[in-house]
Amino acid sequence: MYYHDKRLQYPVRVETPDPLFARQLQQAIGGIEGEIRVCLQYFFQAWGARGPTTKYRDMLLHTATEEIGHIEMLATAVALNLESAPLSLQETASESNPVVNAVMGGERPRHMVEGMLHKHLLSTGLAAFPGNSDGAPFDCSHVYASGNLAGDMFANVTAEATGRTLAVRLYNAAHDPGMKDMLSFLIARDTMHQQQWLAVIEELGGSAALPIPNSFDQSLEKQEFSYSFFGTDKDGTPPPAGRFTQGPSLDGKGQFSAVQAAPLGDEPVLGPARPSSGAQKEQM
Amino acid sequence: MYYHDKRLQYPVRVETPDPLFARQLQQAIGGIEGEIRVCLQYFFQAWGARGPTTKYRDMLLHTATEEIGHIEMLATAVALNLESAPLSLQETASESNPVVNAVMGGERPRHMVEGMLHKHLLSTGLAAFPGNSDGAPFDCSHVYASGNLAGDMFANVTAEATGRTLAVRLYNAAHDPGMKDMLSFLIARDTMHQQQWLAVIEELGGSAALPIPNSFDQSLEKQEFSYSFFGTDKDGTPPPAGRFTQGPSLDGKGQFSAVQAAPLGDEPVLGPARPSSGAQKEQM
Amino acid sequence: MYYHDKRLQYPVRVETPDPLFARQLQQAIGGIEGEIRVCLQYFFQAWGARGPTTKYRDMLLHTATEEIGHIEMLATAVALNLESAPLSLQETASESNPVVNAVMGGERPRHMVEGMLHKHLLSTGLAAFPGNSDGAPFDCSHVYASGNLAGDMFANVTAEATGRTLAVRLYNAAHDPGMKDMLSFLIARDTMHQQQWLAVIEELGGSAALPIPNSFDQSLEKQEFSYSFFGTDKDGTPPPAGRFTQGPSLDGKGQFSAVQAAPLGDEPVLGPARPSSGAQKEQM
Amino acid sequence: MYYHDKRLQYPVRVETPDPLFARQLQQAIGGIEGEIRVCLQYFFQAWGARGPTTKYRDMLLHTATEEIGHIEMLATAVALNLESAPLSLQETASESNPVVNAVMGGERPRHMVEGMLHKHLLSTGLAAFPGNSDGAPFDCSHVYASGNLAGDMFANVTAEATGRTLAVRLYNAAHDPGMKDMLSFLIARDTMHQQQWLAVIEELGGSAALPIPNSFDQSLEKQEFSYSFFGTDKDGTPPPAGRFTQGPSLDGKGQFSAVQAAPLGDEPVLGPARPSSGAQKEQM
Amino acid sequence: MYYHDKRLQYPVRVETPDPLFARQLQQAIGGIEGEIRVCLQYFFQAWGARGPTTKYRDMLLHTATEEIGHIEMLATAVALNLESAPLSLQETASESNPVVNAVMGGERPRHMVEGMLHKHLLSTGLAAFPGNSDGAPFDCSHVYASGNLAGDMFANVTAEATGRTLAVRLYNAAHDPGMKDMLSFLIARDTMHQQQWLAVIEELGGSAALPIPNSFDQSLEKQEFSYSFFGTDKDGTPPPAGRFTQGPSLDGKGQFSAVQAAPLGDEPVLGPARPSSGAQKEQM
Amino acid sequence: MYYHDKRLQYPVRVETPDPLFARQLQQAIGGIEGEIRVCLQYFFQAWGARGPTTKYRDMLLHTATEEIGHIEMLATAVALNLESAPLSLQETASESNPVVNAVMGGERPRHMVEGMLHKHLLSTGLAAFPGNSDGAPFDCSHVYASGNLAGDMFANVTAEATGRTLAVRLYNAAHDPGMKDMLSFLIARDTMHQQQWLAVIEELGGSAALPIPNSFDQSLEKQEFSYSFFGTDKDGTPPPAGRFTQGPSLDGKGQFSAVQAAPLGDEPVLGPARPSSGAQKEQM
Repeated sequence: MYYHDKRLQYPVRVETPDPLFARQLQQAIGGIEGEIRVCLQYFFQAWGARGPTTKYRDMLLHTATEEIGHIEMLATAVALNLESAPLSLQETASESNPVVNAVMGGERPRHMVEGMLHKHLLSTGLAAFPGNSDGAPFDCSHVYASGNLAGDMFANVTAEATGRTLAVRLYNAAHDPGMKDMLSFLIARDTMHQQQWLAVIEELGGSAALPIPNSFDQSLEKQEFSYSFFGTDKDGTPPPAGRFTQGPSLDGKGQFSAVQAAPLGDEPVLGPARPSSGAQKEQM
Repeated sequence: MYYHDKRLQYPVRVETPDPLFARQLQQAIGGIEGEIRVCLQYFFQAWGARGPTTKYRDMLLHTATEEIGHIEMLATAVALNLESAPLSLQETASESNPVVNAVMGGERPRHMVEGMLHKHLLSTGLAAFPGNSDGAPFDCSHVYASGNLAGDMFANVTAEATGRTLAVRLYNAAHDPGMKDMLSFLIARDTMHQQQWLAVIEELGGSAALPIPNSFDQSLEKQEFSYSFFGTDKDGTPPPAGRFTQGPSLDGKGQFSAVQAAPLGDEPVLGPARPSSGAQKEQM
Repeated sequence: MYYHDKRLQYPVRVETPDPLFARQLQQAIGGIEGEIRVCLQYFFQAWGARGPTTKYRDMLLHTATEEIGHIEMLATAVALNLESAPLSLQETASESNPVVNAVMGGERPRHMVEGMLHKHLLSTGLAAFPGNSDGAPFDCSHVYASGNLAGDMFANVTAEATGRTLAVRLYNAAHDPGMKDMLSFLIARDTMHQQQWLAVIEELGGSAALPIPNSFDQSLEKQEFSYSFFGTDKDGTPPPAGRFTQGPSLDGKGQFSAVQAAPLGDEPVLGPARPSSGAQKEQM
Repeated sequence: MYYHDKRLQYPVRVETPDPLFARQLQQAIGGIEGEIRVCLQYFFQAWGARGPTTKYRDMLLHTATEEIGHIEMLATAVALNLESAPLSLQETASESNPVVNAVMGGERPRHMVEGMLHKHLLSTGLAAFPGNSDGAPFDCSHVYASGNLAGDMFANVTAEATGRTLAVRLYNAAHDPGMKDMLSFLIARDTMHQQQWLAVIEELGGSAALPIPNSFDQSLEKQEFSYSFFGTDKDGTPPPAGRFTQGPSLDGKGQFSAVQAAPLGDEPVLGPARPSSGAQKEQM
Repeated sequence: MYYHDKRLQYPVRVETPDPLFARQLQQAIGGIEGEIRVCLQYFFQAWGARGPTTKYRDMLLHTATEEIGHIEMLATAVALNLESAPLSLQETASESNPVVNAVMGGERPRHMVEGMLHKHLLSTGLAAFPGNSDGAPFDCSHVYASGNLAGDMFANVTAEATGRTLAVRLYNAAHDPGMKDMLSFLIARDTMHQQQWLAVIEELGGSAALPIPNSFDQSLEKQEFSYSFFGTDKDGTPPPAGRFTQGPSLDGKGQFSAVQAAPLGDEPVLGPARPSSGAQKEQM
Repeated sequence: MYYHDKRLQYPVRVETPDPLFARQLQQAIGGIEGEIRVCLQYFFQAWGARGPTTKYRDMLLHTATEEIGHIEMLATAVALNLESAPLSLQETASESNPVVNAVMGGERPRHMVEGMLHKHLLSTGLAAFPGNSDGAPFDCSHVYASGNLAGDMFANVTAEATGRTLAVRLYNAAHDPGMKDMLSFLIARDTMHQQQWLAVIEELGGSAALPIPNSFDQSLEKQEFSYSFFGTDKDGTPPPAGRFTQGPSLDGKGQFSAVQAAPLGDEPVLGPARPSSGAQKEQM
């Protein structure tokens, strides 16, 4: 079960509120590279963890719990960036204009609204929501928890790699020192999280964990195709030479090669449509 | 641009059509671990590939093109497995019953329908569709192409790891020798595809590619938090010791440690709701 | 604006409630071939209709309004079919068992639940919902209203063609005389609706409406490719001969031919990744 | 920020694992009436809370944090119920059959698979996922946080009312004493949560909070229509008499009445389609 | 069944077309707070209404039917606001520029396009569609019809509270007198609809309807937790005192209290992964 | 199976990169009128094609394969249009400003970002993705493959009609000669594809293919309603006279007429809510 502290994991401050940056930050909350995703991903991996020890369940719970606090920081940052947003499309002086003008260097409210996410104005009352920078709600099909520990660790590295890439892009886009400071913390945490999932892969034996799942008897797969790069160039031009076309495979169980793909099967033949199946008569 | 051959990449044959297995195969077509996903993922990574050489664009095009053929094989397998499906809920002898009874060992049509995906009966006329085993259409937000080559390679390993795990589960569930044969080929290709993306990571320098993106100046991140595992246990019990709490980090740039998480920030304070913002008066 | 009459457009009666058929009927409510789709499609086409007369706006409003009544009939049919559904997974005699046993010929409640849509039991209290037979909610991106009248008419024929195909499949699956009667009415209306949209295409000039949109100056398109079937067979085997490879085109403006596809462009070259773009250093 | 304790908020035990009940429990995790929804809803309301005090932010954080533990309990219950699930469609004795047979009273594995959610077998490795009982992922558009405190409280009552209704239905469907015990706890918590949001509405002044938002000057609305029930019966039959057609309104600011609806506007006239707009020539 | 009148329920006029306001109005059509949602919600509640009288079915049909007319008004308003939208990104004088310039006070077409919803230009031909102001289609999972009358009434109050909040925000953003007039009518109707659902709750007995559902025997719930506010502060700081922590509960069946949350359960233990389940060997 | 050639089907060149046009082009990639949709639609129709000949399977494979190349062209065009996009919100001179200023005629970076799709900046690293111009991912429920050949051909005409309408709108919006050239090719291909599906309908017998499906015995439908236009005007004003209200039907099997709709059924009566169904007591 879970507990909270009202204070934030790391300070969040905004000197110059910017509704457009509020929009961009949403990607880090509810984008597929965002914090809701990793939070739920680590929780569901933990809650379904099977194995002789509870070590990885425990480890996942620590980091999943940390991620709630990251969503909280970003949601706070979004709300603070929205504080100067114009509430009207009118060009005349309005409630928000003086602030807007002072802060954003003369932007007309109308232009600021054009760049905003309309959900921020119309649906949340100038606050964050669990969706991305184009307004799409987060969809939990992106929570990867396959029941295979090694596969899940690669999914976690991926999540933190795309997450850190996003955080770096936000850092480069940001102009507010408070926002840059907050992002420099989140980038550091993404560094660690990339590292820790890779460390688990090492603990699982590194290449011995491959191919994933390693519990399937490889003699049952068509091994003549297990380490061959298939080229599909129409004219048979071979694929570019690389580590993936020659030398020992990374699991140490085969040798890479490159071969031109060719059909091993025939043209498929399906039975005719059946009388009650709703097809046209000509298909029967 | 692209070309086709009417023949299949590998033979697809079904001795005992099984509508329930047709349903399960859909996951390998339109599930997030399925072939539409990897096909589009490799294509979009190729089409957006930036860098001094076209090597990885080329490589990706080969494998993306191969994957279209995998979708084709699975779609054929679904259609063949549906050929005996009952079209009626009635208990009396019907068009399909004799076949059904002979094939499935006395299943009543009604029970077979209960296990089927209704889309197969009602929407496709006994054929495959681009969705998963619970009927949900494939949603292209699962196509990961981040513009960061190393991050994308990890995403590809993940896709092939979850893909091979799925194929193994289907192999274990299958009872038809033709289906087991087809899956043994697809499992082998998943083995190769896992290997080839890992080979690219090796070409990119392995740990030198970390942290992803490696183009961000790490002096700008809060490095005191870059290699620390944060424990969030309420009572301060430390996290389980592991490779992720001690020793050098996997990128060779730091030392892992474990620390108890604590708030570095304050309780956040948002401004009051503004008069025109649609909040309650009490919030203003 | 709109009015209602509490009576149904056509009688809906169910002699033998069948929760599995309730599930199948959902496809006709909230499937992409279903009634919510056509209802909203015709309304949005009407509400956005532009042109010198209001004739098509009027016509669309009549049929859109009729379709609300079809959703109502189907929703009523679903609720009636669910009246005997078991509410418990227990094997012992329960609240619903006697009815269930009498009606469904000895089905055990557990088996009936297995075939049901769980939403019917858990979320709606034995009533219909605006989703399909696999439980997915209707998604309004399927409401086609393009602003091009001819294109929309083809979309409407498509909707009624797939709609009538679905209704026929449901008719064939049904065992209850009341349900067959209701469906025979809905099938008749789908016949009419297919016809009426085709009649509008005839009014729009038939082939003179082509290609859609007919308001684009065809001299601006690359006309050498406007009536050529492109073959993509790897070995250059020509496509099957058909009406689409020879003779005058159906708009009377060209002659069909078949040609082998070949690249007219070069290999694309994208610029390198930019320094702040979050890519790997190796891509820059 | 947040902390965890490895122990569960309330005991979760399963005496007779039942994969079909595992499926039903998913609705309480990732259905729109489920725990992910309330958890995120309360968090986002808290993180965006504006007003002179932090009282409601604080209160929401307590309950949001509690809800994480409810998801955890249900995810654990799903995993435990899946422990006997068959992994094969084959009829012969298999790995799981003896357990299955002993536990479920002779169910054939095939039938058990028919009732299961295929994601449990194919995608999660016998564990829970953040989706509903028909396999659909939770979609965060269901997280209601409008920025209006009173409106959000009604949304919360609704969430807990549908949540408790769901929990009651699961209780009635369940046959395992451990599951009934767990649900009796969750039902009690839903009772409390309904009450506490209603208590906030009372604190906000009850009817003084109406109409929501109460910050809009009602003299700007067309008040002659603010307390009239509009009847839309085609023949003018009045609506059923009720509290909503007579007597003082519940906000004390008007008198209910019933009137027959009639058009106050004209038939709308849109401009013709413009030349470059992609419409047919006939629309211009 | 249903009927229509070609005239609008209330006049819709636009003096100064504004494509950006057209975008904002979409939220009131296809947003989760919008009119499609309430329309379908009241219809599905009506069509599934069970109980000794048809009173609430009747009442719901009246209001559902009224709501179709609201969608129609808003769709008309969107189309009228789009009439001056630029169809080109070019800066030079074009088909639409003179109007645009006259109307919008010198906006360059490019800037107007930037603020528009691209669907309006590219997919609808300057007309409304059933989606929200960020372009997302309406998704019918937001149609709440639970089969529990009291729960549904709270859902309806919520829908009208968020709907009126949205309408107020649009009123505040609007600059066109016609639009303000239309919105003042819709706001009034939202006032009435909030009131009427609250009136039904009063008819259902007010607090006697609680907890929802009131048909569950409360002796079966863990009543010691039914009226306790659980605090989850890490350091045991109690929650803020309020109506929800003390005094009689609002259903008159208990006394509120506040207690510190603590685990009542143990750390969960799941069985090891099974041999055929696709997990890693190390998990078995 | 499939092959590729690294060259493009048709040249793609961009003289003046325009991030806003990149956004608009996304609709042609991942919009419902776009190329991913037709590509997958033709593939799934081919892979599920049933009937005495393989003619239509073959034909569909040719065109489906061509469409992959269209996605590739558009994805390339998006990446090229994004090459000058600003990566920062700052107003000061930055990495990209000089180019931006030279190219776009003095746009400030901030304004350019406002019009962009944020996914292009934050998630793809200045490349295309499989979603539409408002950022929504393509959802494969739009892939129509019904198992009825005639119905599918109408769906294909619809797809190419809305596709060509979209391409024409993009052509009209474009300012870059390279983009206009590419679009003039794609428009020509849409012309052909409209024609070829209509040619198949002609081969299927034209009106003999109607009503779809033509395999249902029309004596089983309520034929008195099969050719009647139902008017739903409240006051009985007849629908506008047209080809759809008089003369022979287009399938030659009936005569059109217009009749006023009226209820043929009664007010529906559902049974009361059952004791364990989670309804309120008052509904039982």
